[in-house]
Amino acid sequence: MSAVRPSRRGVLTSAAVVGAAGIGAGVSAVASRPAAAGSPTASRTVPFHGTRQAGVTTPAQDSLVFAALDVTTKRAGDLADVLQRWSAAAATMTTGVPVGGPGGLGGAGDEPPQDTGEAHELPAANLTVTLGYGPSLFDERFGLADRRPAALEELPALPGEQLDPTKVGGDLCLQACADDPQVAFHAVRNLVRIGRGTVRVRWMQLGFGRTSTTSTTQSTPRNLMGFKDGTANLRAEDTADLEKFVWVGGQGAPAADQDWMRGGTYLVARRIRMLIESWDRASLGEQERVIGRAKESGAPLSGTQEFDALDLDKTVHGKPAIDVAAHVRLAAPDTNGGVKMLRRGYSYTDGLDVATGQLDAGLFFIVFGNDPHQQFVPVQRRLGTHDALTEYLKHTGSGIFACPPGVQRDGAWGEGLFI
Amino acid sequence: MSAVRPSRRGVLTSAAVVGAAGIGAGVSAVASRPAAAGSPTASRTVPFHGTRQAGVTTPAQDSLVFAALDVTTKRAGDLADVLQRWSAAAATMTTGVPVGGPGGLGGAGDEPPQDTGEAHELPAANLTVTLGYGPSLFDERFGLADRRPAALEELPALPGEQLDPTKVGGDLCLQACADDPQVAFHAVRNLVRIGRGTVRVRWMQLGFGRTSTTSTTQSTPRNLMGFKDGTANLRAEDTADLEKFVWVGGQGAPAADQDWMRGGTYLVARRIRMLIESWDRASLGEQERVIGRAKESGAPLSGTQEFDALDLDKTVHGKPAIDVAAHVRLAAPDTNGGVKMLRRGYSYTDGLDVATGQLDAGLFFIVFGNDPHQQFVPVQRRLGTHDALTEYLKHTGSGIFACPPGVQRDGAWGEGLFI
Repeated sequence: MSAVRPSRRGVLTSAAVVGAAGIGAGVSAVASRPAAAGSPTASRTVPFHGTRQAGVTTPAQDSLVFAALDVTTKRAGDLADVLQRWSAAAATMTTGVPVGGPGGLGGAGDEPPQDTGEAHELPAANLTVTLGYGPSLFDERFGLADRRPAALEELPALPGEQLDPTKVGGDLCLQACADDPQVAFHAVRNLVRIGRGTVRVRWMQLGFGRTSTTSTTQSTPRNLMGFKDGTANLRAEDTADLEKFVWVGGQGAPAADQDWMRGGTYLVARRIRMLIESWDRASLGEQERVIGRAKESGAPLSGTQEFDALDLDKTVHGKPAIDVAAHVRLAAPDTNGGVKMLRRGYSYTDGLDVATGQLDAGLFFIVFGNDPHQQFVPVQRRLGTHDALTEYLKHTGSGIFACPPGVQRDGAWGEGLFI
Repeated sequence: MSAVRPSRRGVLTSAAVVGAAGIGAGVSAVASRPAAAGSPTASRTVPFHGTRQAGVTTPAQDSLVFAALDVTTKRAGDLADVLQRWSAAAATMTTGVPVGGPGGLGGAGDEPPQDTGEAHELPAANLTVTLGYGPSLFDERFGLADRRPAALEELPALPGEQLDPTKVGGDLCLQACADDPQVAFHAVRNLVRIGRGTVRVRWMQLGFGRTSTTSTTQSTPRNLMGFKDGTANLRAEDTADLEKFVWVGGQGAPAADQDWMRGGTYLVARRIRMLIESWDRASLGEQERVIGRAKESGAPLSGTQEFDALDLDKTVHGKPAIDVAAHVRLAAPDTNGGVKMLRRGYSYTDGLDVATGQLDAGLFFIVFGNDPHQQFVPVQRRLGTHDALTEYLKHTGSGIFACPPGVQRDGAWGEGLFI
């Protein structure tokens, strides 16, 4: 009764090999590596160490587990210790190896195992773990008040939001992305476990399907409104725009006001519930008018192909091809002083909203930029006021976090602040 | 800026082709079909029509969306209509085609689109949709009181449960399983939408990683306790045991007391929260004693290989190799009068339990059998009383449903009862 063919997860591993090499060139890899199915080395991995944190411009993986955490200690040294242990654990897990190394599933004597085990023998699945610091971390507790970058300020109240107080803020955030949800869950669970006694989870969100593309190697996915999402997103290949709009202190960007954030970025998370029952009652014409794109092709209503540039001036029978209140018009860089951002969104559902009897589902929107109060905030203020889409959306969760630069091979998260 | 390489979902499609053909033989399929990436025909599909419902012995897919629903009409004809429309929609969606056919993403005139669109261009991903009827459907509303099979009786109170009243029961259930969570979510969402005004969701659960194997073609996955789960499960290939223990009126099984259930089966769903913080503090030795298997290999503590038969009599240094309270001992058919069941479990997490500050995560346990009150109930009563694992578990959701036989090509769910 033993397994006689590779599991789907084994197959995924092989697919990962194909993907890494490119479909055209790498097919033989599948044939030559069946024995490697399930082995971490057969999987695609994203390096944890580097000058930037992974999980920002990394091609968006399929699954997300996002956690906002509070620090429960007042001793900076305890937090520094957790950040160092987190760095070591994240570096290990992102290679598909258990916390504590290959033997982490075991345990010495009466010690509990170092790793919880549910990702054992699964491929690394492109796991990335990205750390952010919330504004509240820079209060009086750790003497960091004068180290807070000006951009790391709590978000103001914004139109269209009805925030659930249990899904707002946090001293820290961890964003785990992977092509296998079990791998992403395992990463966050194990980091939370390592931090026990020093940090605790404040809120958490799973995302089950990516809704943006962050690389030209990816096709555009659809969100729960059924529309392609992320067509006009910044991508890893847009290096000049990333310098200007995403990386702190990048070329063409405002100067960094805190040295420790140079090469980092800011993460804004918004849990955006879609009122999908109302949306589902709208006609195709209404849906397309609201978005400003064709549902099937993703083309702007001023064009014919998904990647056609928006023509905001085009009229049809005397009316704008792209409605004045269309989402793509109001979100377009051209109508927002040229502002661009890097989105990394995921669909979510938390099942039934017992209060309303409707599905609690939508978009967990993550956006990276080097100046969120000049990027996300004004755009969202405008969308929340004028966007035709707003009547179908409700922002229910929110957070802003400073993601420091990457960790060098001999380094750790927390350097420049705690270490 | 157009996509120049297939997305991971495209790659998955190719992987599906490899999987279907077997790694050794089918590699050329990848090379010859890159253009098919994203096309429904490139994906593996599970036939909706047949003498049995799919989603029972179908090799367990990676993702689950489970919904329990209540009927809000008192007119049997309305419900029959929904069941017929559900059958047509499920048959379409399981081939990777939108509700309403290939044009379902559009909409005639001012009509809303028939399909919500988020699975458009995704492969069918082995989608199965399985329907069940709850005991409450056989009350006085539809005149079905004398059509209720004796086995479809509400579950009694069981030890180890602390049921959340918002996650119990239901007139109907829909189990959607697929290798892409977006495909499974899309299926349930669209069926719920079709049923609006006649049925409404009572509770819902997502499962993100399968925790059993239902076919010898699959390797054994790990649950959130880090242990291999489902090693001793019934499998699709165990045809004689399936007749005897799973299919109603099967060979060697008790006779069917209701004709309409012949060839069907009963589904018991249990939302089993794992107290993972406590579990994570237990030593490896304690964890293995509680389960009765080695964590790394999955071998019973009386043996050396995962698929070794349990030797419940074996002693080591005068003590039982498999502890008297070990889960595998108490769940084993040999200690339960030979009872076997077909499990289809999924890991779940619903994020933070705000009340306790701990993760709400565990196992969404689905089990099929032709006599649940003689199979699941006595085994669970025994486990809940004596099993060492019980101190780490809490059953928080529950339901029992009668899954009728399969739908023929010209037929529909509801036949024999409403149609």
